[in-house]
Amino acid sequence: MTYSALEEHFRRLSRLEHLDAIASWDEAAMMPPGGGAARGAALATLKGMIHAEASAPRVGELIAAAEKELGQLDPWQRANLREMKRGFIRATAVPSALVEEASLAASKSEQAWRKLRPSNDWQSFLPLLQDVVRLQREVASALASTLGLSPYDALLDGYEPGARAERIAPLFAELGRILPELIRHAIERQASQPALVPQGPFAVDSQRKIGLELMRRLGFDFEHGRLDTSHHPFCGGVPEDVRICTRYDEQDCLSALLAVLHETGHAKYEQHRPAAYLDQPVGRARSMSIHESQSLLLEMQVCRGHEFAQFLAPFLSQAFPDAARLPTSGGPSALSVENLSRVLVRVRPDFIRVEADEVTYPCHVVLRFEIERALIEGTLAVKDVPERWDEGMQRLLGLSTAGNFKNGCMQDVHWPAGLFGYFPTYTLGALTAAQLFEAARNAQPGLGQAIARGDLAGLDSWLNEHVWSRGSLLETDELVTAATGAPLGTGAFERHLRRRYLGEG
Amino acid sequence: MTYSALEEHFRRLSRLEHLDAIASWDEAAMMPPGGGAARGAALATLKGMIHAEASAPRVGELIAAAEKELGQLDPWQRANLREMKRGFIRATAVPSALVEEASLAASKSEQAWRKLRPSNDWQSFLPLLQDVVRLQREVASALASTLGLSPYDALLDGYEPGARAERIAPLFAELGRILPELIRHAIERQASQPALVPQGPFAVDSQRKIGLELMRRLGFDFEHGRLDTSHHPFCGGVPEDVRICTRYDEQDCLSALLAVLHETGHAKYEQHRPAAYLDQPVGRARSMSIHESQSLLLEMQVCRGHEFAQFLAPFLSQAFPDAARLPTSGGPSALSVENLSRVLVRVRPDFIRVEADEVTYPCHVVLRFEIERALIEGTLAVKDVPERWDEGMQRLLGLSTAGNFKNGCMQDVHWPAGLFGYFPTYTLGALTAAQLFEAARNAQPGLGQAIARGDLAGLDSWLNEHVWSRGSLLETDELVTAATGAPLGTGAFERHLRRRYLGEG
Repeated sequence: MTYSALEEHFRRLSRLEHLDAIASWDEAAMMPPGGGAARGAALATLKGMIHAEASAPRVGELIAAAEKELGQLDPWQRANLREMKRGFIRATAVPSALVEEASLAASKSEQAWRKLRPSNDWQSFLPLLQDVVRLQREVASALASTLGLSPYDALLDGYEPGARAERIAPLFAELGRILPELIRHAIERQASQPALVPQGPFAVDSQRKIGLELMRRLGFDFEHGRLDTSHHPFCGGVPEDVRICTRYDEQDCLSALLAVLHETGHAKYEQHRPAAYLDQPVGRARSMSIHESQSLLLEMQVCRGHEFAQFLAPFLSQAFPDAARLPTSGGPSALSVENLSRVLVRVRPDFIRVEADEVTYPCHVVLRFEIERALIEGTLAVKDVPERWDEGMQRLLGLSTAGNFKNGCMQDVHWPAGLFGYFPTYTLGALTAAQLFEAARNAQPGLGQAIARGDLAGLDSWLNEHVWSRGSLLETDELVTAATGAPLGTGAFERHLRRRYLGEG
Repeated sequence: MTYSALEEHFRRLSRLEHLDAIASWDEAAMMPPGGGAARGAALATLKGMIHAEASAPRVGELIAAAEKELGQLDPWQRANLREMKRGFIRATAVPSALVEEASLAASKSEQAWRKLRPSNDWQSFLPLLQDVVRLQREVASALASTLGLSPYDALLDGYEPGARAERIAPLFAELGRILPELIRHAIERQASQPALVPQGPFAVDSQRKIGLELMRRLGFDFEHGRLDTSHHPFCGGVPEDVRICTRYDEQDCLSALLAVLHETGHAKYEQHRPAAYLDQPVGRARSMSIHESQSLLLEMQVCRGHEFAQFLAPFLSQAFPDAARLPTSGGPSALSVENLSRVLVRVRPDFIRVEADEVTYPCHVVLRFEIERALIEGTLAVKDVPERWDEGMQRLLGLSTAGNFKNGCMQDVHWPAGLFGYFPTYTLGALTAAQLFEAARNAQPGLGQAIARGDLAGLDSWLNEHVWSRGSLLETDELVTAATGAPLGTGAFERHLRRRYLGEG
């Protein structure tokens, strides 16, 4: 049967992707610096083979033939075929020469960016970014004509299948309208609730042990995964063997830990992908926004909440008795439930997206979405990005970035690396996390108390039923609607922010 | 030019082998247990691709064409072509169906062996081993007719290119003649030189730190490699990124360290392969015996000698002050130069090869060589192996293994896994190590004193000139003769043993 041949083909591809995942994890977590050139060459060869197999004409023929036998397929198989086709079309829609040219320009620009950003050198970076944008527009246009989408949607669809700018724009506009005021009120309110920053040093080994213990308690399966150290936190590996990494700061006992919790959210999603389809497209995580929703649900919704602080505080106090004794002047300890609940939700508008709290974070994304959409649609010139950036930062966060390129439009790796259409998934993930968590709380009235005990069994079982075990069976919109009873909106996220930051409801 | 196309082909192959090496290292050193099945499948797919590319008919055509253009090639390129051809012939000489059948039987037998060895169950294991031997004889015979070699030589040649049983047999016969008496004399002599076993516990972390420090002092390049932990010590990875592993025993401060030193010998050879040919067959390490000669030269010739003990003793005493204070009854400390020099060279005939000292070790190998050669030549039946084993152990080491299969002919993974022709390389390596080290000492009169200071710069430079930098440019015999002035013999090894163990010369 044609369909079986396709399954076999994708099984083989998944094995090559397994090697890519492990070798890439190793590069970030284990490899000594001198191994870089050889690893780069090996990975490039492997990626080339993966692309060649994924775009082989035979695959297209098999897909077309299998579509004529749809009646013989069950719903998982039909969804699998749909995902296969989606991948094949994307893999073949852009001429190889253009893919190569765009990839080369991105690689050149990203390398230059690593040097030019620290020196705030926008002028030298501009022509490189112009090249990247020009080529991404060509790529977008090639994809757009095959997919019947607008150019920006054609890129977006690569990270977030089914997402459309027309659907995102009103959600983001709503955020842009409500957040500036909400941020002001939250800051005013927090001004009367001082929070002590726990004082280090915090031994890396103790931080690591707490991370491991919390991962275990929160359901990370160590038979199928590990925790290691890298320059930037990430979740990699394969579903049978999920590799998460964090980085440690001796002066800060929370940042590594929160990164571990964030990545544990990603990891649990991976570890619970549908077992029968692990090596098939339909067994993959649904999309980047759904993946981010799982990390944000664990980090932001669960672990930064005051309920979880009741579970977390004793752990930290036991591991760091010195910090738990502060302040010596009396009042609640820096590692008390009360103080931790405050420290974990501080709001502060700032320049850098990756360091932003959950209230200001969407403003960073809204700004990037507006700009990158205009760049790809051709209504904004690359040279005009800094001005537009400054205008947006003033409007959304009240900060001026004039002349401050390195902490402005040059701060992220995404654009230098040619990743346009990626940013929206962060905030779609935050909205989805809030909407899923609200639905789970409504379904499980005792969830708050369970979280205060560090018991996520009930939450996990809800998530497994509604998200994890479904892989890519449903489209993203269908998944969210089926799980929460409504399409994705800003309501749950706004209610969450108003409850946590303004004490409403 | 045809030759360039071949280089490109082998460059690509080396990149796939890079991924194999790293994923295999990860499997042994990092992977959680639940990742095994997916990793096995991924590696099998990769190995299949490597085999398909290595045996593609196009490669044979290119080699044949390049051989007509020999005049255009320099000596390295000619040697590269020779090595390419050697690999291609081996990769294509055996029908795929037979390769697969033999590999399946070996995998089945190895898995059964893991359970049957602990229960000493030779009778259940016998039919599985018979299958393996039958199929290895078929493989040998297919190779033999293509290569114009005897069946055993055809297998041997896969591990040790150019080696022939007729050349090994007299060397091993000589060892079988001189070693039993030498062992007796060494034991008698050591009876009057008691050695204290250093008493633990020895914290794993301290052991690891000493290992890392010695690796650094002895020239391991950490820009291009790492040290980790696994069940069995090994040296893996790629020349640009060598991964060595050891395992730790809290009661023994020497076993992990000596394993590190052994693997460091392998690692330095890999790290000094000729840079211009790292991704070509001619850039590979010359053979298994030469590889083993480098690990044994460092571990046995250098690090277990009394000169090195002068360098080693202070390290250990500083790391393990408690053990250094023993015995409290007076006399030299267990970690003194004097005692360490004795502990490191204790001779004791025993059943297990992998735990044997350097004097008794060759007896284990001589026995296995005799038996496996007879098995492949068909002059010994598998069912008669235990009897033959017992006879050999009595003759060579004065030990009876009657009925003790698990510590007798079932002790090694090699035969269950279908690896016939592999064992001789261990002892060829020991002979080569002695011969190379003797030549290096003759060339560098101050070498002994340098070793006592832990300074291997002179030795490394000699090894680099005569072994490491040559890759596979020369055949093994040529390499040994060029480096030492004579073909491989037993003389240097015997002189080494008589000097170290009998105090002669």
